[in-house]
Amino acid sequence: MELNQIYAPIRADLDLVRDTLRSISHIDYAWLSDQLAYLVKETGKGIRPALTLLAGKSHHYDLTRLLPMAVSVELMHTATLVHDDAIDNAMTRRGQPTINSIWGDEIAILMGDYLFAKAGEYVADTQVPRVVKLFSQTLGTISSGEIGQFRGAFQLNRDRESYFRRIYSKTASLFSLSTQSGAILSRAPEKIVAVMKGYGDNLGIAFQIVDDILDFTSTEVVMGKPVGSDLSQGTLTLPAMMLLERYPEDNPVRKMFETRDTENVTRAIRMVLDSTIIDECYNIAWEYRDKACDELGTLPDSVSRQALLDLAEFVVKREV
Amino acid sequence: MELNQIYAPIRADLDLVRDTLRSISHIDYAWLSDQLAYLVKETGKGIRPALTLLAGKSHHYDLTRLLPMAVSVELMHTATLVHDDAIDNAMTRRGQPTINSIWGDEIAILMGDYLFAKAGEYVADTQVPRVVKLFSQTLGTISSGEIGQFRGAFQLNRDRESYFRRIYSKTASLFSLSTQSGAILSRAPEKIVAVMKGYGDNLGIAFQIVDDILDFTSTEVVMGKPVGSDLSQGTLTLPAMMLLERYPEDNPVRKMFETRDTENVTRAIRMVLDSTIIDECYNIAWEYRDKACDELGTLPDSVSRQALLDLAEFVVKREV
Repeated sequence: MELNQIYAPIRADLDLVRDTLRSISHIDYAWLSDQLAYLVKETGKGIRPALTLLAGKSHHYDLTRLLPMAVSVELMHTATLVHDDAIDNAMTRRGQPTINSIWGDEIAILMGDYLFAKAGEYVADTQVPRVVKLFSQTLGTISSGEIGQFRGAFQLNRDRESYFRRIYSKTASLFSLSTQSGAILSRAPEKIVAVMKGYGDNLGIAFQIVDDILDFTSTEVVMGKPVGSDLSQGTLTLPAMMLLERYPEDNPVRKMFETRDTENVTRAIRMVLDSTIIDECYNIAWEYRDKACDELGTLPDSVSRQALLDLAEFVVKREV
Repeated sequence: MELNQIYAPIRADLDLVRDTLRSISHIDYAWLSDQLAYLVKETGKGIRPALTLLAGKSHHYDLTRLLPMAVSVELMHTATLVHDDAIDNAMTRRGQPTINSIWGDEIAILMGDYLFAKAGEYVADTQVPRVVKLFSQTLGTISSGEIGQFRGAFQLNRDRESYFRRIYSKTASLFSLSTQSGAILSRAPEKIVAVMKGYGDNLGIAFQIVDDILDFTSTEVVMGKPVGSDLSQGTLTLPAMMLLERYPEDNPVRKMFETRDTENVTRAIRMVLDSTIIDECYNIAWEYRDKACDELGTLPDSVSRQALLDLAEFVVKREV
């Protein structure tokens, strides 16, 4: 199923989110406006705002609060990407040059801060302190998780538990904020908020595992950034971990982390693709997709619940 | 008058702010805890949290809301310093090595983000959406102002208006948030909120002019960072602007901006010190101090109002 079909129940409001994001670039400073327009013109798949809006359908759908929240989660996502790209020295993202590659790290730092500020303004517009707190806690989780990832780069002694903790921090926490805030802002009972949290947590983990798989299986043209980026940056993802477990000695991941040569990245990718590792990773991603969908089992059948189920399916089947 | 005396009416609560700031480093990750402890152990003069608490005395002093707000403004201030130091490649701050100089730019970016997140958590704890919004708008003002400063570095065609706009963004906006939020959280009438805004705006401008003066008149030992830093980074402050106005030709500021040599920084400092420029800059700072104090004229006499008046005096007389 295409995203377009899945988003049908919230299509009009998702367009409003996009329009609002674009309007952020209408500010007085001409050149800052250019950079903002550059950042928000390609908003990616829009999964996070869609999650907020769909979760908002679980009770009293209140667009005046859900719209700023949806804008806020997408802005926070964009801000973290801008900072991540500066940290990773990434040159392309979504097929276009990164902010740091065009304007330098300094501007990337400040643009990220500006986007955090804008995200904060929109979350304040919900007028609900509980989601403001959740929003801030999530940013804390993401940034401390990123610090952990950066400090642990090129280290081999990471276990699976640390992997799952890491991808919870970097990805699932924001999925979880997106769904929980949707439920809270629709004044849903706590039981539904908990369901949405469970769904968001698990969907986020599934999403990131697939992301980590695609870094091995995809192509630069499809992804809009080089394959093997994680390995090159010293990030030990699930497929790389499995390769290490399987071949503790003479392992290209081990060698690459020691020598930082790119040849071993290519070798590692080939070895992973020649093994059953990708299938096993997908099995794990599907487990999390199942857990996410199971959470929704207690909710009555509805168009938005079906959309969330379809979105979970999309997340593990996507190729980009 | 010493800061210690000025802070007397809020001494106990300011100690609580400091304790709370220190408690932030009590987190699970050992090494992140070390870095946070490093950052919050020396909290500087604490002017911003003091402003919030003193402004909070203007109506119903409510520590349960003022304490998180005071913590929040200090955290936001620290976060912006961490990012600024990374951007400026600064090596020392408050006499100790900067985060970026010890752990690198990447960690500085993420630590700043983490501190923004913490600041956001505390501001959410006030439970007042209006101050959350003000907080976010202020962060937007600061970061877009910094972008402007960075983009305008080493440019000579800046007028005084752009200077005042810049120092409003980088400094006065946060002073203004500190005082306004104190008034709002004490449920003061709008008239008092406006008074506190006017006081904060003007005090912030005075503070930054003095900061820019001290970059010429102070010593590295006293300041805890090299003198002439602004010029070295291509930032045209008020004394440098006046020197340019006075000697349009054969000017060390002009030469330094063209060639980026440090010799002309020393020459510019000497020429400024040999002129009446510093006195003239102080005159302007005093005008803003007077405006700040005039704002308070409509308030009834009180211990906290007197402390704000004394603080304005301290700000323009301080040597660090």
